[in-house]
Amino acid sequence: QTVELFKPVAPGENVIRAGEDTTSGQQVLPRGRKLRPQDMGVLAGLGITSVTVHRRPVVAILSTGDELVPPEEQPGPGQIRDINSTTLAALVEESGCIASTIGIIGDDFDTMFATCEKTLNGADMILLSGGSSVGKRDFTLKVLEKLKNSELLAHGVAIRPGKPTILARIGNKALFGLPGHVASAMVVFYLLVRPLLLKLGGMDAPLNLLPLPVTTGEQIPSAIGREEYVRVQLLWKNDNNLPVALPIYGKSGLLSPLVKADGLLVINRDCEGLDKGETGKVLLFPVQH
Amino acid sequence: QTVELFKPVAPGENVIRAGEDTTSGQQVLPRGRKLRPQDMGVLAGLGITSVTVHRRPVVAILSTGDELVPPEEQPGPGQIRDINSTTLAALVEESGCIASTIGIIGDDFDTMFATCEKTLNGADMILLSGGSSVGKRDFTLKVLEKLKNSELLAHGVAIRPGKPTILARIGNKALFGLPGHVASAMVVFYLLVRPLLLKLGGMDAPLNLLPLPVTTGEQIPSAIGREEYVRVQLLWKNDNNLPVALPIYGKSGLLSPLVKADGLLVINRDCEGLDKGETGKVLLFPVQH
Repeated sequence: QTVELFKPVAPGENVIRAGEDTTSGQQVLPRGRKLRPQDMGVLAGLGITSVTVHRRPVVAILSTGDELVPPEEQPGPGQIRDINSTTLAALVEESGCIASTIGIIGDDFDTMFATCEKTLNGADMILLSGGSSVGKRDFTLKVLEKLKNSELLAHGVAIRPGKPTILARIGNKALFGLPGHVASAMVVFYLLVRPLLLKLGGMDAPLNLLPLPVTTGEQIPSAIGREEYVRVQLLWKNDNNLPVALPIYGKSGLLSPLVKADGLLVINRDCEGLDKGETGKVLLFPVQH
Repeated sequence: QTVELFKPVAPGENVIRAGEDTTSGQQVLPRGRKLRPQDMGVLAGLGITSVTVHRRPVVAILSTGDELVPPEEQPGPGQIRDINSTTLAALVEESGCIASTIGIIGDDFDTMFATCEKTLNGADMILLSGGSSVGKRDFTLKVLEKLKNSELLAHGVAIRPGKPTILARIGNKALFGLPGHVASAMVVFYLLVRPLLLKLGGMDAPLNLLPLPVTTGEQIPSAIGREEYVRVQLLWKNDNNLPVALPIYGKSGLLSPLVKADGLLVINRDCEGLDKGETGKVLLFPVQH
């Protein structure tokens, strides 16, 4: 019998030797990261079918305001449906945490205090939306003062939108007073709440939102003094050019601009805006269409 | 009583009028997209607390090969643990689908045919890993020929890694014969399987993997003839510069390079590689650390 050789084979070619993928004593996966499909594969290859993971943080969500009714009710004159509970619950779940939606509290100090005190027992964090500004009906600060072991970390943040924000700790738990306008609440969630949730969920160095390099599709003005986060839509290019970011304007209480947006273009505090064609960074929303 | 005015207020300022966010008859959300937190908010605002969504596709996963043992077993001489079932199941779930792990089938035509025929009843897609090349024990093609209403769409794909791939349809269901090497199987999954799963899951124009613009951190050679997907690690820059992609080399049967990688750098078919500092695109893995 004749055997014809088409190409030479080196010794050891197409062979994986014992210890080539991982050697004895080597760390295969660092702690403090999400398990991805390939990480699960590594564990399966080593015969590890069960691992200890971090507990998912529990986040209690409360909406405050006499004007609010639940989504399933028909709002009367001067009333609006509570949008923030639903939106924040989805944001919390998307961050890998458990959302506990408490519901609507009217503008009443005693109810608000009692609800917060009770809620703190079963949660790692409270998100209060509305009531964090400085008006007559903004009770968040007063509630905070009365809660045991509470510490106000910041009242007002130099970002746009999102200025009327309260950051506080109560023992080893966190309380955020978020702006009542949903677009502002979402910006504050992504910038300040989500990184903390990822940390509480056990991640050592979370990336949070991916900072995508882009070019602007038109001039985008901004006022000096606060870091601005402009909702933008992205146009993807098939060549090696950067994606193009187009601003979507609208009041911060409106939802339709957010539905069109893919992420937030960052404009620095000391910058009067970006010219058309300038390079910038867009913080991408975690779920893309 | 004296009232001091600090700044003027225009009529209608800080007021949202009826119909400003959405007007009657307007489409608020297009179909065929994932519902994001802000989309849920829009629905809540309109009093829509229940929507019809698309059924999640069911994907059956089979690993073939006499050499395979399940992850919980100790492999004997000449045996290895089945890594692909675990990895593919995680990839399928991450794509929003339901993974149905059938297990290991030995290199036996009759068992393989019977299992595939039975599995097709309850699944939208079969992922067979191993057995898709042209060796004596590669039964996937033979099984396909015998299945009713089957049509071979491609055998062999001009990508590296991932060449020994089979694409087929059986009636309105899909069958993929994936390479046995896990790194190759993962590349084929991301490039060919995942876009189809997103479509089957109801998305109209899924982005699939995000094409991130990068610069290369070193020279990355490539052979002409097949589109190459190089596993890379990303270094993020705080300034407006592009992230830097560093190649992670390793045989396609190894998992440790995949554990270090953040995505796949695309090198075109007719390109001999990228120089250090050249611009390119990295297809980002969907789950980042």
